Amino acid sequence: MKIIKSIKNAQQILEKEKFKRKTIGFVPTMGALHIGHLSLIRRARKENDLVVVSIFVNPVQFGSKEDFKKYPRAFKKDVLLCKKTGVDFIFYPNAKDMYPKDYKTYVNVEDLSDCLCGKSRPGHFKGVATIVAKLFNIIRPDTAYFGQKDAQQAVIIKKMAQNLNIPLKIKVMPTVREKDGLAMSSRNIYLNAEERKEAVVLYKALKKAKEIIAHGKKNSQEVIAMMSSLIKQSRAVKIDYVSIVDFENLKPVKIIKNRVLVALAVRFGKTRLIDNVIIESVKLKTQSAKLKLKV
Amino acid sequence: MKIIKSIKNAQQILEKEKFKRKTIGFVPTMGALHIGHLSLIRRARKENDLVVVSIFVNPVQFGSKEDFKKYPRAFKKDVLLCKKTGVDFIFYPNAKDMYPKDYKTYVNVEDLSDCLCGKSRPGHFKGVATIVAKLFNIIRPDTAYFGQKDAQQAVIIKKMAQNLNIPLKIKVMPTVREKDGLAMSSRNIYLNAEERKEAVVLYKALKKAKEIIAHGKKNSQEVIAMMSSLIKQSRAVKIDYVSIVDFENLKPVKIIKNRVLVALAVRFGKTRLIDNVIIESVKLKTQSAKLKLKV
Repeated sequence: MKIIKSIKNAQQILEKEKFKRKTIGFVPTMGALHIGHLSLIRRARKENDLVVVSIFVNPVQFGSKEDFKKYPRAFKKDVLLCKKTGVDFIFYPNAKDMYPKDYKTYVNVEDLSDCLCGKSRPGHFKGVATIVAKLFNIIRPDTAYFGQKDAQQAVIIKKMAQNLNIPLKIKVMPTVREKDGLAMSSRNIYLNAEERKEAVVLYKALKKAKEIIAHGKKNSQEVIAMMSSLIKQSRAVKIDYVSIVDFENLKPVKIIKNRVLVALAVRFGKTRLIDNVIIESVKLKTQSAKLKLKV
Repeated sequence: MKIIKSIKNAQQILEKEKFKRKTIGFVPTMGALHIGHLSLIRRARKENDLVVVSIFVNPVQFGSKEDFKKYPRAFKKDVLLCKKTGVDFIFYPNAKDMYPKDYKTYVNVEDLSDCLCGKSRPGHFKGVATIVAKLFNIIRPDTAYFGQKDAQQAVIIKKMAQNLNIPLKIKVMPTVREKDGLAMSSRNIYLNAEERKEAVVLYKALKKAKEIIAHGKKNSQEVIAMMSSLIKQSRAVKIDYVSIVDFENLKPVKIIKNRVLVALAVRFGKTRLIDNVIIESVKLKTQSAKLKLKV
């Protein structure tokens, strides 16, 4: 495994590999790797000749009052984990090279960036789209892997790659959870013991939503109200949002049909956690049930 | 010579060529080719194994009141010119493929896009940066060629490519002029006979500026005043701007030193023309002159 810090070196080394017809699987990360990241790396390992993991805590996706400085860094541990998981190259650039003095260019996916997490984190997804566009240009992967936990990010990056005609595949892999259901996140380590316990409520609320929708509840507001009241039973939480949106355009849906994303962001003390589930077409299921009955 | 309309085909065909280690020179155009374009194509021809010209009148770089609809289209003539000049591929996509329904992603080079032409054409350079980023992702050229006539565009695209780590060289070639000095432009055909005659004043004003700066004039405001009064002698002109700016960051300079761009945009009737000259460091010349005297 090779650790590459320079942008130019990364481009030159990977171009050589491309000329040898090696396929490149790419997992962009901010480090502090957990089992969720490793599941992406393992998938990339299975599907490609070469696996590149980038580790870069991207300053431009953090608001001025957010946790850029205290975001967990664990480079040595990350390196060991990457080695173990069969990574070929770690791209580990520094911020001065990625955003030199007089840096001016930003990629923005309009509309999709302003809702859900974008509302309370203005500029966040512009920062995400920009760094990912840059990384795609540096690594030029055949396939890039993202986690479903960051659902809005995944939708935005897919749209960005498609819109900008970046020739690669994007795969979004299922959220990996702790035994009690809490979605894996590098930010979970911020939680104190009590908050950690209470955080389980997020997945409970999502599962409950899935359940009642499966049982025929179609009114989004009612589902959201149920989830919110469940979550508020925990002390010291502050709901940022609980939303049910169209899976592709992220617009709120009133009546649940087709594919929807049930997504939430909740603060436990100072820690903001997000989670979501995708719910497949209820209407179609009902229709096929009817069809079955007819037969 | 092959004409490619589909984005996917272009990517597949050119990827194959890249695997054969062919270098690709790329000239993005909006068609209505003139000698200025041909000079870029010839240079690309000299320096690369393959030459790709794109012809696409990019809707997103035109304001709602601008000349998108009447912008000259001359595809058949363009094809003949490309053939004659040794082009290998014309990329000729349609707007629906380039900007499908629900298109949302834009590339913006901040600051540089808001001054000079950006002031009276809000959104123009965002449209330019976006289409060029898309074209770079489709063609993946080794070198792309632009004309100095669109000086601000050239600065913005260089910055964009650098900032987004797009691995290619950008070459900016000198403005090609008519015999009387008018900069070649697809928009020159809009001019009626009288306007065409009067339009010569732009290059006259730029040459005069160069001359008086060479003779030691360093105060930008004085140079601009001289140019403006010269241009205003023509009837029916409306000056959009006459500016002297830093060659790299496009910020106005008060005292002319280092490398500056003297740029202007002027309307003749309904036709807006732009032109510019680069003026190399006056200060350094004076210093080296002094040094020579000392010796």
